[in-house]
Amino acid sequence: MNFITFTETKLRAFTHSVFKKMGCSDEHATLATDVLIRSDLRGIDSHGVARLSGYVRLWEKNRINVTPDIKIVHETPTTATIDGDAGLGLVVAPFAMQVAIEKAEKYGSGWVSVKNSNHFGIAGYHALMAVEKDMIGISMTNASPLVAPTYSSERLLGTNPMCYAFPAGKYPPVIVDMATAAAANGKLEIAQRANKSIPDGWVQDKNGENSTNPNELKSGGSLLPLGSDKDHGSHKGYGLSATVDILSAVLSGANYGPWVPPFVAFLEPSANPVGEGLGHFLGAMRVDGFRPAADFKNHLDNWIERFKSAETIDPDKKVIIPGEPEHEFELERKVNGIPLIDVVVKDLNELAIKLGIEGLG
Amino acid sequence: MNFITFTETKLRAFTHSVFKKMGCSDEHATLATDVLIRSDLRGIDSHGVARLSGYVRLWEKNRINVTPDIKIVHETPTTATIDGDAGLGLVVAPFAMQVAIEKAEKYGSGWVSVKNSNHFGIAGYHALMAVEKDMIGISMTNASPLVAPTYSSERLLGTNPMCYAFPAGKYPPVIVDMATAAAANGKLEIAQRANKSIPDGWVQDKNGENSTNPNELKSGGSLLPLGSDKDHGSHKGYGLSATVDILSAVLSGANYGPWVPPFVAFLEPSANPVGEGLGHFLGAMRVDGFRPAADFKNHLDNWIERFKSAETIDPDKKVIIPGEPEHEFELERKVNGIPLIDVVVKDLNELAIKLGIEGLG
Repeated sequence: MNFITFTETKLRAFTHSVFKKMGCSDEHATLATDVLIRSDLRGIDSHGVARLSGYVRLWEKNRINVTPDIKIVHETPTTATIDGDAGLGLVVAPFAMQVAIEKAEKYGSGWVSVKNSNHFGIAGYHALMAVEKDMIGISMTNASPLVAPTYSSERLLGTNPMCYAFPAGKYPPVIVDMATAAAANGKLEIAQRANKSIPDGWVQDKNGENSTNPNELKSGGSLLPLGSDKDHGSHKGYGLSATVDILSAVLSGANYGPWVPPFVAFLEPSANPVGEGLGHFLGAMRVDGFRPAADFKNHLDNWIERFKSAETIDPDKKVIIPGEPEHEFELERKVNGIPLIDVVVKDLNELAIKLGIEGLG
Repeated sequence: MNFITFTETKLRAFTHSVFKKMGCSDEHATLATDVLIRSDLRGIDSHGVARLSGYVRLWEKNRINVTPDIKIVHETPTTATIDGDAGLGLVVAPFAMQVAIEKAEKYGSGWVSVKNSNHFGIAGYHALMAVEKDMIGISMTNASPLVAPTYSSERLLGTNPMCYAFPAGKYPPVIVDMATAAAANGKLEIAQRANKSIPDGWVQDKNGENSTNPNELKSGGSLLPLGSDKDHGSHKGYGLSATVDILSAVLSGANYGPWVPPFVAFLEPSANPVGEGLGHFLGAMRVDGFRPAADFKNHLDNWIERFKSAETIDPDKKVIIPGEPEHEFELERKVNGIPLIDVVVKDLNELAIKLGIEGLG
């Protein structure tokens, strides 16, 4: 596996030109680019430009509307439902978070459920929008069904991430941004490329038997919820995933459970949908709605310091503060560039040829 | 292990007289009793009357104020911080949820962080208060430090439960109510009584080595976060627990992390606290702040039916809808009474003698 490193500027320009070619406005292309590049900068390589050709394929199938009329269809002072008009989730979710933030500015908190959207990139991007305003940011989305609930062999839930982000004082924000499955798809892909088996407890085969085959999903297998099995709390991972599904889709009018449209363009959406597109849930709460922001940040700094200095089992490993590794990636890649694996570079260059734009070279 | 079954009425009368004897007002005694008995009715035996003598011991040590002046100390239209004045969490948390509900009635949502409280019983009780008003209920609390974050051998977090509850139509509410540890303390106690070993992945010894000894916590060991080890996502369980800790305590001004006062009276609280008492976080959102409540309930019923009818691995096991087993327990125990294990009955009878009230017999 070889890596080729690109500057942030170069990858931004390339990504922007892809979204422009799809027909996005300049503003939308810039925003969607920012969400994807932020993911690469933060070391979440699975959700960055590696997905670009996936978005293009959905657009080719008319499953993404590049000129959406995103609008509020229902609201109270602090809640709203937004119709994403089948737009890119990369554009719809920031719109929704902006609505949540404006409500929070006026009333202390704001909560937005979104229907008729598509995949929104990394949950952390949207939650961080709130953090920049000294708010607590919450962001969730449902996703294509790949995860089986406890005791089942059926894929009924997505890896449905939930994210909570908190502003700290002298430290980077604390950002808990996690798939509610034991291991997300990206980890299987790494094992596939390395031709290695995966640990027990990540996937099961189509009959619900344990499997260590990283390709099991291609033969009808499913991912397991966080907790892996009942004895170790898989019903909790399933419950969290259900929570994300209900807040994102049952609440907004999007598709939920097995009806969520697949991200891959070669699989067709359900012929009998129960809602529109997929759903997100976004929230913002002003920290100073509870206590002065400086007090909160001082105490969160103290929390961070206590956990960072915790006694460790292995002298080579420190207790990780959620969000800190991604922050360190971002500092480093801003300076040294973003490494992409060669198969991704090849894929993006082929995309460039197809769209008639300049490739990455 | 023998069980003795009592009627709900009998256990309510007994519990009420204990709280009265402690000096609670009639209103507070009734409310605290309701929280504990609801737990027993719902089959969560570890959080019901089995804990009664624990509360009494804390009161004897002056760590519970039975005549608290519970009040809002900071607020916006949809957020508030409440000072529980060292009262019983069983009384403070319902007060706080009531504030959240009233804010939600006016503005769509309400969010309350609580400091200076004590253990609040089952999270589900408080979240269900919102569900009864056609709202989504959220409830969390931090707790005595027993859980080690990933890579650490130190107990820095409680089993910090989070609960999300949703009103359904023809089905009982969906209630995700879960400790963020791989297995809560109650499961260890069952193994201790049965003199059995526990599965790998629930606890570690004081050096951070895997252990299957259910008594490990007594020798300085710790519970593991949901996910059990890094490979299986223990950093996610740790992240969820951290989220609960920050929302409940860093936000309100309660103690957090290792500073949370222990529930057991024989352990002293920290001599250098970072806040007051322990903390909760409660929220309510009007369902019709997002879409008509009937639409939401119809779709949640559909969600429930799809999951209930999912293909299962073992023909004897159905996919569980979160909250359904507890609902079935409640229906059954309302009719047939509440079974208590003999050691709990003995403990309660001794408590009665100490307090000079009528025992359970």
